[in-house]
Amino acid sequence: MTNFVPSAQLLPRVLAGDIAAIARLISRAEADTPEVRTVLCDIYRRAGRAHVIGITGVPGSGKSTLVGKLTSCLRRHGRRVAVVAIDPSSPYSGGAILGDRVRMTELTLDPGVYIRSMASRGATGGMARAALEAVDILDVAGFDTVIIETVGVGQDEVEIAKASHTTIVVSAPGLGDEIQALKAGLLEVADVHAVSKCDRSDANRTVTDLKQMLALGVRAADAWIAPVVATSAYSGDGIDALASAIDAHRRALAPSEALAARRERIAGFRLLKTAENLLLEELRGWTARHAAGLSASLAARETDPYTGAQQLIDRLTESRGTSP
Amino acid sequence: MTNFVPSAQLLPRVLAGDIAAIARLISRAEADTPEVRTVLCDIYRRAGRAHVIGITGVPGSGKSTLVGKLTSCLRRHGRRVAVVAIDPSSPYSGGAILGDRVRMTELTLDPGVYIRSMASRGATGGMARAALEAVDILDVAGFDTVIIETVGVGQDEVEIAKASHTTIVVSAPGLGDEIQALKAGLLEVADVHAVSKCDRSDANRTVTDLKQMLALGVRAADAWIAPVVATSAYSGDGIDALASAIDAHRRALAPSEALAARRERIAGFRLLKTAENLLLEELRGWTARHAAGLSASLAARETDPYTGAQQLIDRLTESRGTSP
Repeated sequence: MTNFVPSAQLLPRVLAGDIAAIARLISRAEADTPEVRTVLCDIYRRAGRAHVIGITGVPGSGKSTLVGKLTSCLRRHGRRVAVVAIDPSSPYSGGAILGDRVRMTELTLDPGVYIRSMASRGATGGMARAALEAVDILDVAGFDTVIIETVGVGQDEVEIAKASHTTIVVSAPGLGDEIQALKAGLLEVADVHAVSKCDRSDANRTVTDLKQMLALGVRAADAWIAPVVATSAYSGDGIDALASAIDAHRRALAPSEALAARRERIAGFRLLKTAENLLLEELRGWTARHAAGLSASLAARETDPYTGAQQLIDRLTESRGTSP
Repeated sequence: MTNFVPSAQLLPRVLAGDIAAIARLISRAEADTPEVRTVLCDIYRRAGRAHVIGITGVPGSGKSTLVGKLTSCLRRHGRRVAVVAIDPSSPYSGGAILGDRVRMTELTLDPGVYIRSMASRGATGGMARAALEAVDILDVAGFDTVIIETVGVGQDEVEIAKASHTTIVVSAPGLGDEIQALKAGLLEVADVHAVSKCDRSDANRTVTDLKQMLALGVRAADAWIAPVVATSAYSGDGIDALASAIDAHRRALAPSEALAARRERIAGFRLLKTAENLLLEELRGWTARHAAGLSASLAARETDPYTGAQQLIDRLTESRGTSP
């Protein structure tokens, strides 16, 4: 702890794009130390320039590989690209997939690219908070494009992908029915659909099926119609088209009220998630210290969950009143 | 609504094991109507006799098929078995997997078996609440064994599987690395490990790998060592052994303080989840009505998420004080 650099001192280095400082600040955001919060609040107010792209899809849909290819493509167009991966199966999450990790190495050697994986475990909503704080940090550090990659399983994961300016949902051919079933409800959040693995012979079927499903759905008042882009990370086909579709969506948002509406939706989500975190943090702390008696009487069926929970909340509220 | 039967009137029919009344009450628990809460509280106090078995595993691990075979086996031993499936990929969830659904039909014709699927979507924690209320309902309706099946992705899903007397984690050979990576953190919750699809030639490897991983782990003070049971739903091998392992775990819990500790852990989880629901319900309602201004100023970066969220909570707390 003798070498501890206060987060406030890291800030100027982050603003100058210092990768080591960026990495440290993101780690502190993940750990959610009280010390870092003021700095993150400052950063939030400075942020807002980057185009944030959310990419989600069921496990096995080839998201991570596609993100790698898309990142290379955006680099060729001169963008500075940061990736925040909240995906336990991500090849750059320090997981077991050595082959993919090696493949990502070409990107990690490029100073115009920063890739960061974040744990998807932890308290409800904590992941969303930390991920969006990481996006702010990368935004003020000068990355003009920030990609959030989440596995499309779990409500929070889908919400995070939605909390971006352009949301991409990745579909893939050849996944089992069990996996495909997880996809329900995922498609509707897409601004752009990417079908991966289109070098496979069964990919045409996936593209056709997807287009048919989308034709059945009724789009909201939104004038934008989500395009379906067939891609192959293997051959490289469709990656440019995907980048173009993202750019078209960005341009469609830019001059209109749609961007303001999108920003307010993201802010609303973030406000609610932060408030949820604060409340649940307080509740969990209180429960750990004061709920043993209530748990025991609930286990003995002397009370019921609602009565017990209401007592817990009442006691918490009272304690707040006495020690403001 | 003219035919609405109050939940309190459904209760005696539920206690008598009337399937139609059970199904209606579970639907009401899912919908979380105020009217049903008092009855659910009454039911909670009456419940506590059933042995609750949690079964979890990553998508594609063959949980649902195994649950079907296990249910048949427990029936042959004279048990009355209810299954609560919280699994978007479950064959009995009204999903697309016709073959499996047909296969389950033999069970659904047996009055000693009740199978119910529940939506895994919805508000945070709401799924846990409704699932555990369904368990209570089935318990007081006379099912001596209640199986909760959840997909092992997402924190709530894993917690629900843990909120049972015996937790089974299903592993399978031949799943991709992306899927396997989701398994991290899942293994440690197991009282019994089931390896499915052991008719496959690569299953031995899965069993060996699993045993090696478990040998590396240090068990808590708990004297129980989770056995690894190789099963095949296809050949039927190992299903009896799995039922025996579950029974051995039940007997190991029965005379000891372990059962009391387990029951208190479950009660603690339930207390916290219920309190979380109550708080978040209040917060979300309040946010929907009063947060538009805060969201707009957050979107404009005039404030930051913490300041905004704290203001939201303060206003909510104040409003509580004025209208108790």
